[in-house]
Amino acid sequence: MNASLQDSPLYQVLNPKSVVFFGASNRFTAMGSHQLNSLLEMGFPGPVYPVHPKEKTVQGLTAYGSAADLPETPDLAVMVLPTDLVADALAQCGRKGIKRAVIVSGGFNEAGPQGTGKEQELLKVAREYGIRLVGPNCIGVANPHHGLNTAFHVYDAKPGFIGMASQSGSFVTQMYQYMKPLGLGFSAAVSVGNQADLDLLDCLEYLAEDPNTKVIALYVEGLKRGREFMEAARRISPKKPIVAYYVGGSETGRKAGFSHTGALAGPDKVYDGLFRQAGIVRAASVEELFNFAWVLGSCPPMAGRDMLVLTHSGGPGAALADALGRAGLRLSELSAQSLARLEGLVPKTASLANPVDLTFTKDPLAYAGALPAALIKDENSQGMIMYTLLPGEKAERVLKEMGVPESETPAVAAQMAREQRDSLARISREGDKPFIGFTFWGYSDPMVAGLREIGFPVLDGPVAAARSMAALASYSEMRQRILASRAAD
Amino acid sequence: MNASLQDSPLYQVLNPKSVVFFGASNRFTAMGSHQLNSLLEMGFPGPVYPVHPKEKTVQGLTAYGSAADLPETPDLAVMVLPTDLVADALAQCGRKGIKRAVIVSGGFNEAGPQGTGKEQELLKVAREYGIRLVGPNCIGVANPHHGLNTAFHVYDAKPGFIGMASQSGSFVTQMYQYMKPLGLGFSAAVSVGNQADLDLLDCLEYLAEDPNTKVIALYVEGLKRGREFMEAARRISPKKPIVAYYVGGSETGRKAGFSHTGALAGPDKVYDGLFRQAGIVRAASVEELFNFAWVLGSCPPMAGRDMLVLTHSGGPGAALADALGRAGLRLSELSAQSLARLEGLVPKTASLANPVDLTFTKDPLAYAGALPAALIKDENSQGMIMYTLLPGEKAERVLKEMGVPESETPAVAAQMAREQRDSLARISREGDKPFIGFTFWGYSDPMVAGLREIGFPVLDGPVAAARSMAALASYSEMRQRILASRAAD
Repeated sequence: MNASLQDSPLYQVLNPKSVVFFGASNRFTAMGSHQLNSLLEMGFPGPVYPVHPKEKTVQGLTAYGSAADLPETPDLAVMVLPTDLVADALAQCGRKGIKRAVIVSGGFNEAGPQGTGKEQELLKVAREYGIRLVGPNCIGVANPHHGLNTAFHVYDAKPGFIGMASQSGSFVTQMYQYMKPLGLGFSAAVSVGNQADLDLLDCLEYLAEDPNTKVIALYVEGLKRGREFMEAARRISPKKPIVAYYVGGSETGRKAGFSHTGALAGPDKVYDGLFRQAGIVRAASVEELFNFAWVLGSCPPMAGRDMLVLTHSGGPGAALADALGRAGLRLSELSAQSLARLEGLVPKTASLANPVDLTFTKDPLAYAGALPAALIKDENSQGMIMYTLLPGEKAERVLKEMGVPESETPAVAAQMAREQRDSLARISREGDKPFIGFTFWGYSDPMVAGLREIGFPVLDGPVAAARSMAALASYSEMRQRILASRAAD
Repeated sequence: MNASLQDSPLYQVLNPKSVVFFGASNRFTAMGSHQLNSLLEMGFPGPVYPVHPKEKTVQGLTAYGSAADLPETPDLAVMVLPTDLVADALAQCGRKGIKRAVIVSGGFNEAGPQGTGKEQELLKVAREYGIRLVGPNCIGVANPHHGLNTAFHVYDAKPGFIGMASQSGSFVTQMYQYMKPLGLGFSAAVSVGNQADLDLLDCLEYLAEDPNTKVIALYVEGLKRGREFMEAARRISPKKPIVAYYVGGSETGRKAGFSHTGALAGPDKVYDGLFRQAGIVRAASVEELFNFAWVLGSCPPMAGRDMLVLTHSGGPGAALADALGRAGLRLSELSAQSLARLEGLVPKTASLANPVDLTFTKDPLAYAGALPAALIKDENSQGMIMYTLLPGEKAERVLKEMGVPESETPAVAAQMAREQRDSLARISREGDKPFIGFTFWGYSDPMVAGLREIGFPVLDGPVAAARSMAALASYSEMRQRILASRAAD
């Protein structure tokens, strides 16, 4: 456990003032060139020093023949070199006084017996010079709040609140573009690779203290320091939610994970129990890892499992109801006070059961305004989910016939979508319970894009919405249990 | 059972030569106006006659005061009228000799005891004049191959191969935009509403004979003629796959379905057994309904449960492996012949276990060419799944340094993406086993868009891919079993 963020061995990795880069050139057939480019595109605020045996400049930066030639001692070295050059480059760094390295290169433990020897050699060099390292066989690290991204893809999502530690580099770098249309981003992300030195537990402890991280997301193939990890998680989870996608529990996942990072995995049921004790929410897929992190990082804790559903279409309401039941949540009965609040607001054809189903209403503004504002106060439910399909092109047509000049309808419709978005955000903020949306038109509905942009979670589909709310319920329950047992100690 | 497509009472509903439309006007605050607009935007090839009490023209078409005034007897009437006007309009149609109607209006059985009386009245009128009807309380019908769409949203997907019958209108009309980026479309779609007359079974029998329908998709809240339905399904499923999403099995889904369409639902386990006997593949969500239909309609039957996985990234490979195991599929061992075929094709760092993981390769063209071409011949597997992330912007950068002028790189990169797409399509066509892809960048990767456009299924995420392949395995097994028991009779 670190007393503060700065005490974490990862602090300097994720917040370096300067970076030396090995393995980038001016040729983009080399992986390292893409990774240096990612760092530059990110607008990293400090100096970046490429080391190259021949080139005088690399991607417009002055290049150096070796670490010894650098004008200062950088905080961090990043290496994307052929396996057999890594140990020597690390020794160069050590002699220069560099104390942190991210080693992207593969060919170590994950490559079998021969690789294991090379990883031992690397660790020996690191220990000799007091270097702490991430990797090898990783994709790098990102701290978008610090302008840092050393991974393969350019970071084009916004700086966010998900702190990620992953045994897969893909689930760091390939997720940038995945998160973008969801309005999500990483607060910090570490691809741990073979975890020769710094491991998932180090990441967990860093992310627990990181003020930008609201929720910790883990991709796990198998744990190295299992007991300490679970103890740390149990300490951390009551104040910051932890979500994990663990693939080692199935026979097929265990095998694939082993040949990927050499991780040794335990059976599913054992991990289920360990995760539950530690207060870790378990996700069943990569997408769920991000969905759960989204909802857990955006919503207040949930005081129970009775849900209220607002929809304008019967099928999506029924599908959500089905998914809620399967996820272990319940449909509440509308309170008498809710029924009174709804009087005059709903058309005759509306169903006042839960799901509250408006079918076709002549006042689409109430659907994102007065209605959810009344419903979120419901005394019998502890969470609310809304079907957020509000197709903009229909609004344009109605506006046109209301006398809005054709040239102005897109702007007026966009303004209406913004007002609906702001209205829902306000209702969510002022409500005392978790409130999320779901849609089937994720990437193509401007209202949904607007909601996601300002941090209101709109999940893709009813199952994702129901399971994410259930994850929040589980987290809230585990949290209470851990806090209660702590109080009893 | 119908002797031919033309004998189905739905034939004239889905293939009308002319349509009379009740309830549309020039005002888009009326739902019916949107629905007429959908029909016109679709370029329906025959005459469309709006009936309106006051207007002389509706959306540019000559309007008529009543059905009696029409210059001919249309094949189909569509009604989006206030509840209490429907029976009279239907009688008008009957007197004119019209024999088919789609009744969108709600306020009937689903609205409680008062509505039940109105539905009975409607049926009485229909019987008096020999009218067969779809609805009431539905969203309409679509046959994109015939230029027909009477539903709320404009049909902007392509004419496709999914034949849909749904107790939710949303899962017809709101799915147009959902299917579009997947390269999918409806062959025909019927929102059955309250099923006062024509029901899911009628749809099933029509779609079984419809040459444009390769796979039948059903959204079910509860069946009306359960036994006959299951018998028909068992007859149909060996020649055309049937996928169903049934929400009535959970307590929450049953309740919501009942207040939506008044459907009476049976418990989950009973339906599981009935579906299995009938050869119907069961989907667990709306998205799965479409995913399963996609794969079942695109791939040949699958001869077993051993899968081969091709990836260039370890995490997505491990996540897919985990999902395969959980979906009841297996990872095969590469055959000795496969290992021989791969010699010289894979870099040293590549893992030759399954998943076949290339990590970073210097020849990205082989990843969509020689490699899958070699692997699809594998003797030990009956299906192949590939991670299809091939980011175009990286290709542009590499092309630039290969001397392609900057102004030409986007075009050359696009050409490369097309060649990769065509290569995968060819491999799939020439292979003797199901072959699909998966991605996390569904909507934003041009290569994926290209693959989807030409009908190669690329699913969103590893779980969707694994579960869709498992659905294909289940279908193939059920089909064999039904055919074998038929042969034994």
